[in-house]
Amino acid sequence: MRTGDLTTPALVVEAARLEANLATMAAVLPGARLRPHVKAHKCTALARRQAAHGHRRFTCATIAEVEGMAAAGLGEDLLLANEVADAGRLGRLARSGARVTLAVDSEETIAAAVAGGVGEVVIDVNVGLPRCGCDPGDAGRLAESARARGLLVRGVMGYEGHIVGLADRARRIEMIGPAMEALVAAHDDVGGELISAGGTGTYDINTWATEIQAGSYALMDTAYTELGLPFGQALYVEATVISVSPRWAVADCGLKAVAMDHGNPTIEGSEVWFFSDEHVTFEPGRPVTVGERIRVTPAHVDPTVAKHRTIFVIDGDDVLESWSVDLRGW
Amino acid sequence: MRTGDLTTPALVVEAARLEANLATMAAVLPGARLRPHVKAHKCTALARRQAAHGHRRFTCATIAEVEGMAAAGLGEDLLLANEVADAGRLGRLARSGARVTLAVDSEETIAAAVAGGVGEVVIDVNVGLPRCGCDPGDAGRLAESARARGLLVRGVMGYEGHIVGLADRARRIEMIGPAMEALVAAHDDVGGELISAGGTGTYDINTWATEIQAGSYALMDTAYTELGLPFGQALYVEATVISVSPRWAVADCGLKAVAMDHGNPTIEGSEVWFFSDEHVTFEPGRPVTVGERIRVTPAHVDPTVAKHRTIFVIDGDDVLESWSVDLRGW
Repeated sequence: MRTGDLTTPALVVEAARLEANLATMAAVLPGARLRPHVKAHKCTALARRQAAHGHRRFTCATIAEVEGMAAAGLGEDLLLANEVADAGRLGRLARSGARVTLAVDSEETIAAAVAGGVGEVVIDVNVGLPRCGCDPGDAGRLAESARARGLLVRGVMGYEGHIVGLADRARRIEMIGPAMEALVAAHDDVGGELISAGGTGTYDINTWATEIQAGSYALMDTAYTELGLPFGQALYVEATVISVSPRWAVADCGLKAVAMDHGNPTIEGSEVWFFSDEHVTFEPGRPVTVGERIRVTPAHVDPTVAKHRTIFVIDGDDVLESWSVDLRGW
Repeated sequence: MRTGDLTTPALVVEAARLEANLATMAAVLPGARLRPHVKAHKCTALARRQAAHGHRRFTCATIAEVEGMAAAGLGEDLLLANEVADAGRLGRLARSGARVTLAVDSEETIAAAVAGGVGEVVIDVNVGLPRCGCDPGDAGRLAESARARGLLVRGVMGYEGHIVGLADRARRIEMIGPAMEALVAAHDDVGGELISAGGTGTYDINTWATEIQAGSYALMDTAYTELGLPFGQALYVEATVISVSPRWAVADCGLKAVAMDHGNPTIEGSEVWFFSDEHVTFEPGRPVTVGERIRVTPAHVDPTVAKHRTIFVIDGDDVLESWSVDLRGW
């Protein structure tokens, strides 16, 4: 099959670029030093490629991701890096043989782990992003409470989400120290083998964490490309030009096919005017014709992938494989 | 089943509000005066409710929507209000008995209709939105060309997408005249029974079109609510609070569950701070607790629905039905 045969809009991934990204990361963070975050690709076939590069522990954002990874035989050590109010489905998975560790940041979420039958947790610590995670000073008390209720506390996690996307590397380095020192202090109170943190933007400057939860490095997007990291753009949405006017053209990749939360996706050599539900209007840098294929580069990889059923793995114009985006939904 | 039993995030639709919206619209635009746009809900079960209110002709934005509507027995008169470079799948549908009409705006898209075996078209005319549609002055020539190639030209369409969302009704009224006069002039050159145009924001002021392509009116969103139309918010994303801090709380409805292209969705009585992939961070207007359910109101209905597999139809806390969002994908 050729890319020209794909129904558009179609999510395509350049096989060589993906493999290079995976190899680059595995060289810096081998084996358990990386706990790849599957939320970025929601694809067990891609997770299997990460496992082939030596990473056997994974990070998930949703219960459905944990279930899907376990069902795909990738359930050796799954961290749900997120709180849940009902851990029943996770408990069933744990009883069926997957290793499931759950983030908790309150007495209520500890109670949910106990009630659901999840035996292992990490204490989620707020390191500066106003989202989940307890106050660093509360981590020890929560760990004690979790252990008193029979849970195994494997350590701490703390996501520096307010830092990973900053374009200036010096600023990232400046900010990560205080954030991770707070996490390490919390870990001193909590104990356990894990200090889980980090993302693609801090993978090489977060030297405090025992494991890094990066995900975007595999496929990349225009937001992360601005950081000057050694990972290349592997993911595009292939689209077909359907209308050409004197000043602009329209292709069939709209905002239902590409995420808009990080701003407009881009089209190389062209100026994007705006996205509608099923269209992008752009000013082409060269003449285009109806039926011609173009490529749209997403600004944010995670929600873009989640809009598609299939990732087509390509080499030039050859479609090598099709991978199901099988970790979608909740 | 109760809403409290739903796995969150979950798309819920208030049955009474939906029915009121459908009835209000059908009273103003009965039967064929409305050609409901299914792109807003991507759900044949909801289209069947629209058909029950008297509308038997539908508008689609994608080939998959046309296929799904035909498969559901709603293929009496389907307009694909969009250009395609390959009409093969549409031609197969037409041969299997569905009535399929395709928008064309160029010689290339006319050729695609002929090659694919779609026998009926409308000439898509640009009425001011820089997207698809030919120059109004070219419409007659294109119609002639289409007829010379054996196509039945049913008329014209022209979407005033630059007007439908304007908050000020007086401004909408002021702008729609010139746009629709251009479309009517094109229709004079083209002929045929159809002048297809309009949307929820112009349903009652577009008096030029023979049929209105509104879709959002059924479920609504915060963007359309600002227009002061007689349609009420029927759609929400139900979410669970998973973390509570002194100043903010976090619920499990992130930007993978709710569209961001029209800005932040809202939470009644609370201030939304920001959305992440799987979280919303908000400042609650009253104390909230972990496990509590909240409702997020989308800013843009179409891409929000497209993120979900199922619409749960509710009456208060009772879940009456679950409808598959079966028109997703391409």
